[in-house]
Amino acid sequence: MATNVQDTRTAILLISCADCTGLVATITRFIHENNGNIVDLEQYVDPEENVFFMRLEWDIEYLSIPLDEFGNAFQESIAIPYGMEWTLHASVDRPRMAIFVSSLSHCLYDILARVHSGEWAVDVPLIISNHDTLEPIAQKFGIDFHVFPISRDTKHEQEEKQLVLLKEKEVDCIVLARYMQILSPDFVDHYPSRIINIHHSFLPAFPGAKPYHSAHERGVKIIGATSHYVTAELDTGPIIEQDIVRVRHADSIDDLVRKGRDLEKLVLSRAVWHHLRRKVLVFRNRTLVFA
Amino acid sequence: MATNVQDTRTAILLISCADCTGLVATITRFIHENNGNIVDLEQYVDPEENVFFMRLEWDIEYLSIPLDEFGNAFQESIAIPYGMEWTLHASVDRPRMAIFVSSLSHCLYDILARVHSGEWAVDVPLIISNHDTLEPIAQKFGIDFHVFPISRDTKHEQEEKQLVLLKEKEVDCIVLARYMQILSPDFVDHYPSRIINIHHSFLPAFPGAKPYHSAHERGVKIIGATSHYVTAELDTGPIIEQDIVRVRHADSIDDLVRKGRDLEKLVLSRAVWHHLRRKVLVFRNRTLVFA
Amino acid sequence: MATNVQDTRTAILLISCADCTGLVATITRFIHENNGNIVDLEQYVDPEENVFFMRLEWDIEYLSIPLDEFGNAFQESIAIPYGMEWTLHASVDRPRMAIFVSSLSHCLYDILARVHSGEWAVDVPLIISNHDTLEPIAQKFGIDFHVFPISRDTKHEQEEKQLVLLKEKEVDCIVLARYMQILSPDFVDHYPSRIINIHHSFLPAFPGAKPYHSAHERGVKIIGATSHYVTAELDTGPIIEQDIVRVRHADSIDDLVRKGRDLEKLVLSRAVWHHLRRKVLVFRNRTLVFA
Amino acid sequence: MATNVQDTRTAILLISCADCTGLVATITRFIHENNGNIVDLEQYVDPEENVFFMRLEWDIEYLSIPLDEFGNAFQESIAIPYGMEWTLHASVDRPRMAIFVSSLSHCLYDILARVHSGEWAVDVPLIISNHDTLEPIAQKFGIDFHVFPISRDTKHEQEEKQLVLLKEKEVDCIVLARYMQILSPDFVDHYPSRIINIHHSFLPAFPGAKPYHSAHERGVKIIGATSHYVTAELDTGPIIEQDIVRVRHADSIDDLVRKGRDLEKLVLSRAVWHHLRRKVLVFRNRTLVFA
Repeated sequence: MATNVQDTRTAILLISCADCTGLVATITRFIHENNGNIVDLEQYVDPEENVFFMRLEWDIEYLSIPLDEFGNAFQESIAIPYGMEWTLHASVDRPRMAIFVSSLSHCLYDILARVHSGEWAVDVPLIISNHDTLEPIAQKFGIDFHVFPISRDTKHEQEEKQLVLLKEKEVDCIVLARYMQILSPDFVDHYPSRIINIHHSFLPAFPGAKPYHSAHERGVKIIGATSHYVTAELDTGPIIEQDIVRVRHADSIDDLVRKGRDLEKLVLSRAVWHHLRRKVLVFRNRTLVFA
Repeated sequence: MATNVQDTRTAILLISCADCTGLVATITRFIHENNGNIVDLEQYVDPEENVFFMRLEWDIEYLSIPLDEFGNAFQESIAIPYGMEWTLHASVDRPRMAIFVSSLSHCLYDILARVHSGEWAVDVPLIISNHDTLEPIAQKFGIDFHVFPISRDTKHEQEEKQLVLLKEKEVDCIVLARYMQILSPDFVDHYPSRIINIHHSFLPAFPGAKPYHSAHERGVKIIGATSHYVTAELDTGPIIEQDIVRVRHADSIDDLVRKGRDLEKLVLSRAVWHHLRRKVLVFRNRTLVFA
Repeated sequence: MATNVQDTRTAILLISCADCTGLVATITRFIHENNGNIVDLEQYVDPEENVFFMRLEWDIEYLSIPLDEFGNAFQESIAIPYGMEWTLHASVDRPRMAIFVSSLSHCLYDILARVHSGEWAVDVPLIISNHDTLEPIAQKFGIDFHVFPISRDTKHEQEEKQLVLLKEKEVDCIVLARYMQILSPDFVDHYPSRIINIHHSFLPAFPGAKPYHSAHERGVKIIGATSHYVTAELDTGPIIEQDIVRVRHADSIDDLVRKGRDLEKLVLSRAVWHHLRRKVLVFRNRTLVFA
Repeated sequence: MATNVQDTRTAILLISCADCTGLVATITRFIHENNGNIVDLEQYVDPEENVFFMRLEWDIEYLSIPLDEFGNAFQESIAIPYGMEWTLHASVDRPRMAIFVSSLSHCLYDILARVHSGEWAVDVPLIISNHDTLEPIAQKFGIDFHVFPISRDTKHEQEEKQLVLLKEKEVDCIVLARYMQILSPDFVDHYPSRIINIHHSFLPAFPGAKPYHSAHERGVKIIGATSHYVTAELDTGPIIEQDIVRVRHADSIDDLVRKGRDLEKLVLSRAVWHHLRRKVLVFRNRTLVFA
């Protein structure tokens, strides 16, 4: 029975397992028998790897058991027999998100405006930066701002301190809003598929530094931006969202940077939205975005 | 179990009914019990009207009963109890499609190239026109071309003859590829949700004649095209697909017409593709496109 | 001789007049003779109305006379003989822009972030609203916020007060950032082609109130936003910029509103950018955007 | 004085030279003094290289001297003194275009439909292929079809024969409409900036073979197509036009190929249109497209 999902207490189940017949029937029956009303269901089977994926969202108002008991029961009667990986989320849970920035403000402003206006149901307990440039913006919005200057020598040590702070603040996910430092593989390991970056090119074109310069040099007619989960290897993590904008020969590098800023804001915010709404599943180095 | 859908013998079930709990579980269980393997499932519940919609595609290689028997069984045990409207299609069935044209060739060429190259699994037994202008193109592709000149006085009579011919040729659906005549409500009644038109504007903006002139006059920065099912009322049927292209102040009406041609081809072909792949459900005056 | 336009002191000349032969030669020769170096030239002739338009931007570093004298000389020797309408701007002049809002914050945040980060070379001396809802945002950015509640009876009187305030603050142009009141023709007359509105639909489709509801009801596959100069008649002023985003049958009205917000920010900010960079000429009810 | 450019006898002048002051004034005065009426003017100065570029189109109805004499006079009095490179074209000249194909028909059909319907003012004296697969399409349209099977050993020899044939047919430009052979640098040298290719990816992402497979493997959310002039080095020539289309995780490689086909047709046809209308200037490895 459908209702306005965003105003309703729902649960979201993300599942993957080896494909076999009857999976949809088995899972949906289990929800039904526990008085859950499905409001959204999407499934996909990877035809090469023969892996089954599903996102299920259901109304839990009349659920016959508490949600954590439901999880336990699901684990016993379905997930173990079928060898599933799964996560269960309640829509009312507010994720806690840290923002990492350097000295460019456009993505930070855009995110804080979304959080502050209630567009995103998320808490931002802290902002981390390698510079103090953007501290006044954090102050405007009343958010803690922590500066960790990074040099080759201090990087390991500073990341250790950042991890302590993130743990202390119970951070669930991290958004790199034009953060100009490369995170170490060790750091990334603490937040698998939970660090979202915005890269200012249409990956895999122009990875690395100064993509707008490279795009201008190559004479492309379109520039792009790519939001992806961060993995140990630079600019190669699973892509969540991409978009593009047209450019002309008369556009200077400054024009590309200007047009690109709007694109970065848009693409990053869409990726974060999908992540927060539990729309994204990661498989190998790709994402499934059920949106 | 997933396979390459397009190379596989599948069945496609399109369902709508009043929403209630357990529908997905009930339907998928029925497929499973008859040894059908679901390869694609999409569902949607209209939250205002409380209506449930589903598109199911499943591999019928190991189906325990012939597909028509399956249909009968589904009708008895599921569709009647739940008050469903439903249609069942086998992917191997080739629809028979008539094309209506007037004197513009771009959509006709585009469609015939797709049919001829095997991109669309469809038969085109005839082309109907109110002019003989495009007859040479039909001849190039070896397709029967029938001219029915239309005037106010002859319209009813000519449409009657067209209907006889369409029936004789066992036509399933009709594509109006820039056909410049308005079909009468009577004619339309014979092919409900089976006549696809391309209108050269971003509906509901600029309905009726000469939309490129109106767009130019209004000074819009974007023009569009809209493909929709034809209903009794002009340019107001359920929209299947739309797209747009940017224009500038320096673009003359001729430029709009030129840019619009490419858009019309693209939008019409996408709409027809969705229709042929049984991706479209019509509800009230809207479409659900499961693509 | 080209340089980075944005870092250079340039002058911008916008011209329109009845077309005749030799206009480009005459105008560019005049610039050249006064030691102005053209960095950008765009011209267009309306073929139906036979009107000539030109935007010229030139480096004034070596200009042989001060810019205001240049204007006087241009008026005498070129503009009067050819019956031209023209405006002359120095790139270093910072326009003064007022923002009108009601209770939605997304466009306001977006604009203030652009101003505050220096992306736009503009001063914002005040924000006007018919509600006090967004006053805390103005405070964050240290900008005066004035509330003028509007009712049918008080509208005329309140607009008079607004005009006094705008004059006092030497405002050049006004941005309606989702301002929910309709300005009276009298008010609009004080700022011809200098009030920029954002309408949340792809005009001329869905003018007036609640366009997202109408778009949902009509079942469109694309929604849009339109930024235009305000004229006496509602939602029919000259369009500066438009853009669109795809929607699906599963998108609720809330989803349309959410997707639309990002579109509104983007389209409004592009229109304001073109206006601030003196890229826009208005002719009849259309714009020429030299970008 | 403006008229409908496409119905008017115009001349098009494409110019590049070292930038200096007064160029626009000098050139436009020369046109004016010879009774040419400018209908379109675009200019651009590359700020890094300090190079001036201009495209001028003017009505030659009242030109005081024949167009070839005009060219000679321009060379003497303007081009030599300023060290210009320039080309002069009459709009009534019909270019002669060869099409190279392999076994995919979609671009070929699209091009032939445009030529045959008069959308492009161009003659196609021959089609060249390394297979005979598409010969029936050439026959439908009454165009000579020549098969040159290519192997490593015969490539040089076959290209020599192709060049003889192209010369014999007085071919001006070549369109590679999904031609699967790599042209040798020697061959390319005969048609500098006159061979247009369509590559089925968003270059510089996914150069080389099987870009749709690579795009699927990488999990991109957008695929593209790129049309460029062919140079000695594979897939790195000056880009004329690019465009993109969205894809989803559920899109198989077959879906990418299908969506990509429409993109390839569109992007290639836009590039050829710009080339035919003399809108493109090549500088270093980039294009200026005055459209």
